[in-house]
Amino acid sequence: MFIFNGKFGITLQLMKTIYFSSYIRFSNSAMMSSKLKNTKRIEGLDSNVWVEFTDLSADPTVVNLGQGFPDIPPPSYVKEELVKAMAVDKMNQYTRCFGHPSLVEALSKVYGKVCNQKIDPYKQILVTVGAYGSLFNATQGLIEEGDEVIIIEPSYDCYVPMVKMAGATPVFIPLRIKSNVGSPTSSGDWTLNPDELASKFNSRTKAIILNTPNNPVGKIYTRDELEVIADLCIKHDVVCISDEVYEWLVYTGNKHIKIATLPGMWERTITIGSAGKTFSVTGWKLGWSIGPQHLIKHLQIVQQNCVYACATLLQEALAQAFLKDFKRMGDPECYFNSLSRELEVKRDRMANLLQEVGLKPLIPEGGYFIIADVSSLNVDLSDMKENESYDYRFVKWMIKTKKLAAIPLTAFCGPGTRAQFEKFVRFCFIKQDSTLDAAEKILKSWSKQKS
Amino acid sequence: MFIFNGKFGITLQLMKTIYFSSYIRFSNSAMMSSKLKNTKRIEGLDSNVWVEFTDLSADPTVVNLGQGFPDIPPPSYVKEELVKAMAVDKMNQYTRCFGHPSLVEALSKVYGKVCNQKIDPYKQILVTVGAYGSLFNATQGLIEEGDEVIIIEPSYDCYVPMVKMAGATPVFIPLRIKSNVGSPTSSGDWTLNPDELASKFNSRTKAIILNTPNNPVGKIYTRDELEVIADLCIKHDVVCISDEVYEWLVYTGNKHIKIATLPGMWERTITIGSAGKTFSVTGWKLGWSIGPQHLIKHLQIVQQNCVYACATLLQEALAQAFLKDFKRMGDPECYFNSLSRELEVKRDRMANLLQEVGLKPLIPEGGYFIIADVSSLNVDLSDMKENESYDYRFVKWMIKTKKLAAIPLTAFCGPGTRAQFEKFVRFCFIKQDSTLDAAEKILKSWSKQKS
Repeated sequence: MFIFNGKFGITLQLMKTIYFSSYIRFSNSAMMSSKLKNTKRIEGLDSNVWVEFTDLSADPTVVNLGQGFPDIPPPSYVKEELVKAMAVDKMNQYTRCFGHPSLVEALSKVYGKVCNQKIDPYKQILVTVGAYGSLFNATQGLIEEGDEVIIIEPSYDCYVPMVKMAGATPVFIPLRIKSNVGSPTSSGDWTLNPDELASKFNSRTKAIILNTPNNPVGKIYTRDELEVIADLCIKHDVVCISDEVYEWLVYTGNKHIKIATLPGMWERTITIGSAGKTFSVTGWKLGWSIGPQHLIKHLQIVQQNCVYACATLLQEALAQAFLKDFKRMGDPECYFNSLSRELEVKRDRMANLLQEVGLKPLIPEGGYFIIADVSSLNVDLSDMKENESYDYRFVKWMIKTKKLAAIPLTAFCGPGTRAQFEKFVRFCFIKQDSTLDAAEKILKSWSKQKS
Repeated sequence: MFIFNGKFGITLQLMKTIYFSSYIRFSNSAMMSSKLKNTKRIEGLDSNVWVEFTDLSADPTVVNLGQGFPDIPPPSYVKEELVKAMAVDKMNQYTRCFGHPSLVEALSKVYGKVCNQKIDPYKQILVTVGAYGSLFNATQGLIEEGDEVIIIEPSYDCYVPMVKMAGATPVFIPLRIKSNVGSPTSSGDWTLNPDELASKFNSRTKAIILNTPNNPVGKIYTRDELEVIADLCIKHDVVCISDEVYEWLVYTGNKHIKIATLPGMWERTITIGSAGKTFSVTGWKLGWSIGPQHLIKHLQIVQQNCVYACATLLQEALAQAFLKDFKRMGDPECYFNSLSRELEVKRDRMANLLQEVGLKPLIPEGGYFIIADVSSLNVDLSDMKENESYDYRFVKWMIKTKKLAAIPLTAFCGPGTRAQFEKFVRFCFIKQDSTLDAAEKILKSWSKQKS
């Protein structure tokens, strides 16, 4: 018990007596309180396809080609570098807020070479909690309430809620089948209509989110296509947030071009990369944003008020892995090159399999997903929930009856374009041969049942 | 080159011709664009004491008792568990968004025992990127634009910018010296005046941020003090965000009480913990929020739109470390108990040292910081920047002339209370004996110079 002096002089016992009656009155109704609601900024952002389908695919008898994570092991030297980092005690403690020094320096070397320009490791790079964290920092740091942000559909599913959480309006434009293509067979058969794209830009447009190689379609934007986007960004003074997490996963005959390297674009582009996608370690949750200091500094402010820093150990190991591959960047055994060779075989195998069972695949130019048109199967979905779109019902039916999981394509679409894409589902093929064998078995037995 | 059909029929070449002239016009002025500014939500939130003082203390000849990270190694079994987790390939891939299953289950066991109630691992626990991430999710998920949030000063420095980033107004109340205390010698000599605290609550008050054991002062709130806060939270229907990252670091004669265990408080409290503080691994950047589902679900929505998930490997190792200490929670060798014994010796050593040199320490009841009144030294700071507060100038002078780093206490204060606290600096004592030896050498030679 203690007594206070001055104008607030009152005993603690007296305080407790005063509040006792009100405590009784309020405690029962506390759970109903309107004050304990969520905030407007997250209103309506609660559904998440990964949370839903991870649960549905949790049954160990289901072959999961849904969520996009490798079940192949990461390269052995990546794991070895982690063991080395762990031996140093200080690697268990905080590091620099905007990126562990050895990692930002390694990234500056690698991307300096890729972009053929000097990149300041401390002012032009920000290490984040996955590419996801980069997207969040970019939307919170650059996108204002009332802004418009152009999103190309189908798009990775976090773009829309992140734009909404920043208080902005997503403005959608779909990829469309090229006019000279009858039935599309490649992700390159889908493109943006430049005139339609131009119609989406106006004075409220703050940013466009580009994703190349694209998830879920696997499209790699050509230089011509990127120039159309770049010219519009420059004309309308718009920021380009370029999600390039699949940058190394490029298949024969295609080339990944960074929009930041086009004239006039460096100064208005945030380029996002991912350790998870680069070294097959999605669980490390490390990514990065690269761009001009006048943009990166805003993302840094978000980071320092959001998570402060990323895990030191993992950053150190990643830095050493990058340095190893930096030294052999042109060589075939460099992981940046060897992984896409390995995956191209898996892509082709999956495409053949899907075709055999009557699903029409769209061959991806890059990334580790393949989408397939499932409409020709004419599966009877009358048992599935009526109020869901066709692809959601199809995937749930496939998980239930075929024990094979994929992701419905409309998970990547806004309401306006669901009809255009609801006959497609997405399969992930960065999987061990044994996983693909299991998928093959399911698909072949399915094929036999049909015939 | 390809041609588009339909109403947007236009050739790519034509598009490029149309945009060419505008491209030339805009590209030179792009960097000056008003559109490339930061967003209102981060306006004025760019300064950060850690970024500033980490740079100042980077000189390896400086003994750094500034930023709060251990330079003692983490327990060996924590490192061993990480090695074991690394051997499992899938530990390198994504895990559950709201917390790796083995970790939320381990946390539910430990905190179920601490709180003497069942805690649902999947609905009442959220694993985050450090306690920092928990604070961010809580402020973004629960605090609305226009709300008021009560912050007790001195407070950990991220509370204010996070509250501002959520669009709310921080309402400050300082800890004051108890009336029956002449010159304070313990963190327990500082307390809240209940009447003054009551005057801060009104219909706009959404939350209060509590921090016990407190950083930077080391105060552990007593049951009487917590009851005053709890009664006000219940009376005014206010959420309590309770940052308890130093929960295990409690020194002889003190007891840490969780405000969530007080009657009527579970349903309105988010309790935040930290792997960094629990196992001396600040660089792992793992923390957690525990609370009722009706609050945690809002924090989950922020997490799924912000970083999505935390590093799998580190979560798995942490889960196993927790299970090990869960089995021996009552035993002296349990790390939850042994670390505070080890630190109490360091605390007492630091207190004696500071006293010897004429700095008046405030003995902390918990945590791993000790603050000291430096005013009696009458150091000549006329060479230091005039427009900074006394403690900033003192610490910069001490780093420069004594090669000893600490953190100025007003880094933890709003403008209204700077005068009250600007004669104090904070030292971190979770340091190896060799680091404390080096600090001792500096302080003793300083003491000799004075006499």
